[in-house]
Amino acid sequence: MFDIQSHQSVSLTDIEAEIARVVWSDPSIVAEAAKYHFSAGGARTRARMGLEAALGLGLSGQIALACALAPELLHNASLVHDDLQDGDKMRRQKPSVWAQYGKNIAISTGDLLISAAYRTIAMHPHPAAALCAMHDAIATTIRGQARDCSIGLATPEDHEFIAADKSGPLLALPVQLALIAAGLGHDDDAICAGRAIAIAYQTLDDLLDRADDQTYGVTNICLSLEATGLSPGVAARAACERAGASLDAARRHIGALPRGAGAPFLKLATRLDIQLKEFSHAT
Amino acid sequence: MFDIQSHQSVSLTDIEAEIARVVWSDPSIVAEAAKYHFSAGGARTRARMGLEAALGLGLSGQIALACALAPELLHNASLVHDDLQDGDKMRRQKPSVWAQYGKNIAISTGDLLISAAYRTIAMHPHPAAALCAMHDAIATTIRGQARDCSIGLATPEDHEFIAADKSGPLLALPVQLALIAAGLGHDDDAICAGRAIAIAYQTLDDLLDRADDQTYGVTNICLSLEATGLSPGVAARAACERAGASLDAARRHIGALPRGAGAPFLKLATRLDIQLKEFSHAT
Repeated sequence: MFDIQSHQSVSLTDIEAEIARVVWSDPSIVAEAAKYHFSAGGARTRARMGLEAALGLGLSGQIALACALAPELLHNASLVHDDLQDGDKMRRQKPSVWAQYGKNIAISTGDLLISAAYRTIAMHPHPAAALCAMHDAIATTIRGQARDCSIGLATPEDHEFIAADKSGPLLALPVQLALIAAGLGHDDDAICAGRAIAIAYQTLDDLLDRADDQTYGVTNICLSLEATGLSPGVAARAACERAGASLDAARRHIGALPRGAGAPFLKLATRLDIQLKEFSHAT
Repeated sequence: MFDIQSHQSVSLTDIEAEIARVVWSDPSIVAEAAKYHFSAGGARTRARMGLEAALGLGLSGQIALACALAPELLHNASLVHDDLQDGDKMRRQKPSVWAQYGKNIAISTGDLLISAAYRTIAMHPHPAAALCAMHDAIATTIRGQARDCSIGLATPEDHEFIAADKSGPLLALPVQLALIAAGLGHDDDAICAGRAIAIAYQTLDDLLDRADDQTYGVTNICLSLEATGLSPGVAARAACERAGASLDAARRHIGALPRGAGAPFLKLATRLDIQLKEFSHAT
């Protein structure tokens, strides 16, 4: 396994330092809210993926920073705005930004993070192509979020489409930015791998949150499958099978990526596969 | 006077077409809300400034598009989010985006417009410097909006600082982007000119809206001057004088800009000067 921490040129510590420099070096209440949000933790999955993809392709530390930071900052912008849109009061065991600082500050905090994400593309060697990939990713993420906010009774297919739209683009983006930086293309395979992994990711969330989602009326693929007449146990296993098929599709796209650029995807897919199998056996 | 419409290489029609292409070519409810917002009109002041500055410096039509579009899209993103934050239900004689489409769609619409603004920098010849200027402008705008939302009784100096922060950066940005594209620098003069013009711009608004702002408890420089013991008439004239001094400062910075790049600022400053003098004589 690629160990980011031990790599000489750039590490997660550099990521945290760069977020601090770009986002809250100029003090304001919005910068404070952004700092509060990041200090609550988070796995930095997209930053790790960007570092691994870029360094794995032999790119410089500065380029790796851009590939890591842009998707990570966008992801956190989406969390801040999504929590406000969904009325979620908690994030990472702490009040969400809007719950802590109010709705107006939360709007501005998300805006600042979107802007900071784009700012990091100043370190990318092919900024024009990177900017286009960023905007496509954001436009698709927004389409998914808008559909999720407005949909009533969703079919299992609706769920997968929304999950792929909402979470796929920002999972694909770290790898896309690294591929663009290395002049390797294969944008479509990275996007398709991201979308397929996002479906499995969301399914696992839905399996774990089924009871809560039923209580609060949140869309959930298990509940959608149950609505077709399946029992909860059969629906859960069906959801696991669909997610497994999605991971198989992801692997086909990952395999088509050049020079091992798909390694960060493969790690995610393997982890999700194990978790889904554990859940399936326990059901 | 520079006539944008008659210039061969690029015009306001191209701006509108490019906004449509980048923002709502992929249909969604958010794209529809963005289209609704732009269809309500607007002076396209920042787009005109970007075209004039870039074409005046002999830059290509494509570069002029970037200098025009990025600030115009950011300005409209800020209008969509500001209306939501300030609870303003009307914009350009129509319901504002949040009033028409709901708060969640308004948040996503502003996000899409920020992203689209950055996307246009793909057409800029020095994207790294342009991205840094964009982020600085947005961070300062956000600081101003946050201060405006939170301040209680503002002094006249607070007003000017907030106006300069909120509106200055996006008035300066079209000229900054053109200067960066032409490799001419002078960032500080453009920023200072934008800030000084923003103060006069806001003062004129405050003079026109004094009665409404008093009714609805909105901060207004006339009311702040009255709070120091001046009568409404004397306060209005004092506000005009302060704005006039700010325009004088703007002209000093405009004069320092190379190769006539300050022309769009000068046009704005001259128009504001006339309007302030008309107001002052009528008081």
